Amino acid sequence: MSKPDKLKARQPRGFVDRGPADVAATERMLGVIRESFSRYGFDPVETPFVEFSDALGKFLPDQDRPNEGVFSFQDDDEQWLSLRYDLTAPLARYVAENYDALPKPYRSYRAGYVFRNEKPGPGRFRQFMQFDADIVGAGSVAADAEICMLAADTMEALGIKRGDYVVKVNNRKVLDGVMEAIGLGGDDNAGRRLTVLRAIDKLDKFGPEGVRLLLGEGRKDESGDFTKGAGLSEEQSTYVLAVVQNEAGYLAGSETEFDAVKDWNKNFDQNASMREGFAELDQIHALVVAAGYGSDRIRIDPSVVRGLEYYTGPVYEVELTFPVTNDDGQIVRFGSVAGGGRYDGLVGRFRPEPVPATGFSIGVSRLYSALKAVKSPIVDAKAELPLVVVTAMDNKSPEHMPGYQAFVSQLRQAKDEAGKPLLRADLYLGSSGFNAQMKYADKRGAVCAVIQGSSERDAGTVIIKDLILGAELAAAGREVKDSAEHKERQAQAQFAVPVAELVEGVRRVLKRHG
Amino acid sequence: MSKPDKLKARQPRGFVDRGPADVAATERMLGVIRESFSRYGFDPVETPFVEFSDALGKFLPDQDRPNEGVFSFQDDDEQWLSLRYDLTAPLARYVAENYDALPKPYRSYRAGYVFRNEKPGPGRFRQFMQFDADIVGAGSVAADAEICMLAADTMEALGIKRGDYVVKVNNRKVLDGVMEAIGLGGDDNAGRRLTVLRAIDKLDKFGPEGVRLLLGEGRKDESGDFTKGAGLSEEQSTYVLAVVQNEAGYLAGSETEFDAVKDWNKNFDQNASMREGFAELDQIHALVVAAGYGSDRIRIDPSVVRGLEYYTGPVYEVELTFPVTNDDGQIVRFGSVAGGGRYDGLVGRFRPEPVPATGFSIGVSRLYSALKAVKSPIVDAKAELPLVVVTAMDNKSPEHMPGYQAFVSQLRQAKDEAGKPLLRADLYLGSSGFNAQMKYADKRGAVCAVIQGSSERDAGTVIIKDLILGAELAAAGREVKDSAEHKERQAQAQFAVPVAELVEGVRRVLKRHG
Repeated sequence: MSKPDKLKARQPRGFVDRGPADVAATERMLGVIRESFSRYGFDPVETPFVEFSDALGKFLPDQDRPNEGVFSFQDDDEQWLSLRYDLTAPLARYVAENYDALPKPYRSYRAGYVFRNEKPGPGRFRQFMQFDADIVGAGSVAADAEICMLAADTMEALGIKRGDYVVKVNNRKVLDGVMEAIGLGGDDNAGRRLTVLRAIDKLDKFGPEGVRLLLGEGRKDESGDFTKGAGLSEEQSTYVLAVVQNEAGYLAGSETEFDAVKDWNKNFDQNASMREGFAELDQIHALVVAAGYGSDRIRIDPSVVRGLEYYTGPVYEVELTFPVTNDDGQIVRFGSVAGGGRYDGLVGRFRPEPVPATGFSIGVSRLYSALKAVKSPIVDAKAELPLVVVTAMDNKSPEHMPGYQAFVSQLRQAKDEAGKPLLRADLYLGSSGFNAQMKYADKRGAVCAVIQGSSERDAGTVIIKDLILGAELAAAGREVKDSAEHKERQAQAQFAVPVAELVEGVRRVLKRHG
Repeated sequence: MSKPDKLKARQPRGFVDRGPADVAATERMLGVIRESFSRYGFDPVETPFVEFSDALGKFLPDQDRPNEGVFSFQDDDEQWLSLRYDLTAPLARYVAENYDALPKPYRSYRAGYVFRNEKPGPGRFRQFMQFDADIVGAGSVAADAEICMLAADTMEALGIKRGDYVVKVNNRKVLDGVMEAIGLGGDDNAGRRLTVLRAIDKLDKFGPEGVRLLLGEGRKDESGDFTKGAGLSEEQSTYVLAVVQNEAGYLAGSETEFDAVKDWNKNFDQNASMREGFAELDQIHALVVAAGYGSDRIRIDPSVVRGLEYYTGPVYEVELTFPVTNDDGQIVRFGSVAGGGRYDGLVGRFRPEPVPATGFSIGVSRLYSALKAVKSPIVDAKAELPLVVVTAMDNKSPEHMPGYQAFVSQLRQAKDEAGKPLLRADLYLGSSGFNAQMKYADKRGAVCAVIQGSSERDAGTVIIKDLILGAELAAAGREVKDSAEHKERQAQAQFAVPVAELVEGVRRVLKRHG
């Protein structure tokens, strides 16, 4: 029974701890992304976690939810502050504040945690990391094309093979134009537009027939739950589906796909917004083709929606296409790990002049899971130096501790042939006996242990125990254990050296295991 | 005049942005600290920024202030959450929650931002970074000694020379014993104890005579402001000062300094707390001497206080001792950049059993300023790859952009002899004319610019302009400019190559500048 006055050690839901393998692998992954972004001429910038609430604005998807998804609080000056919910809104504030000093167009990247005050769920966290790259001050869709190529190159730098990912590009202007064409323009139709966009967003998941139901009366899923539809007519739905499925032409390399669409339904207007949207997609297409990126890497796909409100032009999404087995044993596609788009209005909230901008954001945790799924070497944990544990057999007598301390200090100074640190060294500092100390060394994954009891101390020696070889020998069968060769190997697995040769002895064991 | 409905782009006070040089240098600095901590057998761990408020507890110094110094808010389940104010309280929660799974003693390190809801001031931020290392589950002061040695080694790894820093060690038990001896024990005297501790903490700043005033009636500073004292008698003050100035013996290598102190004033009790405190300091002293750390690196100093409430035993502080010139032109010592101590009660708040722990925390921003002051190579900015800017002379015609895009893509693939990326490449994506584009390349610090106008396009060539050499030539005097040598160099500073030799031409310029 625990005492009633003890606190319970627990975390708020949606916030997680990360252990050594995760931290080290994520660090390496961030390093690769940084290098990729840097090669494109992007410079790092860092903004704080906390901003004035009004500077962040309210651009989250699902803002129909009551609490708006943001953690907010007052400081002791009673001003409302918020934890950033993405890295784009703070960048807009930063650029606006430092506008005159920055080179323009301004290319920057930044990584960091963002926060959402939502109900967490499986794979949904209230703190998660994003890694963003943005170009501010470039109105040309050449900037959008650069971001798409950067996204594709970054995936390959991380060890995701060509064919296992695709960058899908659409344009909000196309979607806006579609809405207008079917008579859903104007403020009054904002709610229905949202329902239509959400239906389109499900094309990958439910296919065209499922989306047709969601655009019309509604759709009942396998469990019998009914999702109310947008109430479009059959003709409206057919038109929407025709536009958003219109990727075939681009796949074949056509540059005038808009012409094909406009003939699909003469009953709807060919409005300026759609025309402009498709023309921009054509330009992006031409740019990425010129730079050698095929449709296996970057593909125009008019069904891409992206949830955030502030997008005004091209939007893009990086999708991983290889199959993975989910927790229920089903084979599924990995899905989206990054996305972004053009947000020409965001910096302009602070500035007298309009400031065009575009950028994308990598979901670091999702991407990390993906790299583990494809066994990318970047997230493999074997990169650390080997660990040596100095045991403290006589730890009940404080007068012997300085001797053990001297051993571990010597080991920490040890260098390899290239003058680099040879190993990591740990001194057992607990109060448990020798057996527990050896278990500690095993649990920590030590390659060898250094041991000195009173008889070794008297003899001026120290014992070096090879824990890897030792474990192998312990697992051997009886007939092996009786052999002369086994005894020979046992002598290699645990041997004494003069104290002055401690580092040499340890070096011998480390060499044995590469 | 700006429009009245525009938001002002600004940050809350005490929160700052950081530009490319700072971000890159800090990253390198953190890498060195990580490597140093890792060599001591510490593993990384990461906890979230947000915890339940009650799990963090209230251990900040100055908790007599109204708002307690913590940013707190409710989530949509109405639970009270707080932003972490240090990395120690979250570690205690983490260890308690994962107690059985962790190797014990558990050595870990972690870096990250922490938050204080206070009035910011010069050099005082509401978001700042700490880098901590802790050993949990080791009651022996050998763990404290390890932390002190780790601190010393880390300073040198960062480029701070021996003699320019010192790790000062004290023991809360000594200070507690002093309070008891002079009759300030018990809950009733908590306020006066705090005043006495604050006075001791000023020893470096005001010297013994200043502290004597603060211990007694009070002290008036140069501006005439009066600080009320602790009201100790002359005899009490003399005793306190004798104990806290008692570092001379340790400097000379004595191991029994406690014996010297106890004779200094027979009127006060030799209590168990002081005796234990000095005995522990003796052990730490013996351990660090055995490992080869002299008093120039780690020094017992009974005047060290450390503000945090949760310390229960040894406390330590890393002080930089070299002089720096402050903003007022005065020569001052840099002061403390790291500190810590033993906090045996903190994990035990969550657990049925007591869990001893000790650790220290580096103030990353202060240390970064210090490294800049000593011109440590770690914070020198020259580590980045050279930047090449591809200009877009014909950026008014979208049909020419794919050609420029192809140039920049080729450059980004360029490798050096070792197969590593050769350069960073940027394509100008704005709408300005050619002169503005060249200014952009200069502002970004590009080594060279790649240029193609219509005549080069017709000729199948591209111009490479060496911006460093170009700036040198532009600065030359008239008589030099007329020389044949100058004309020769001008030809080197700007030359045309066939499009197919773009990368080779750029390589030639990069080689010229190393």
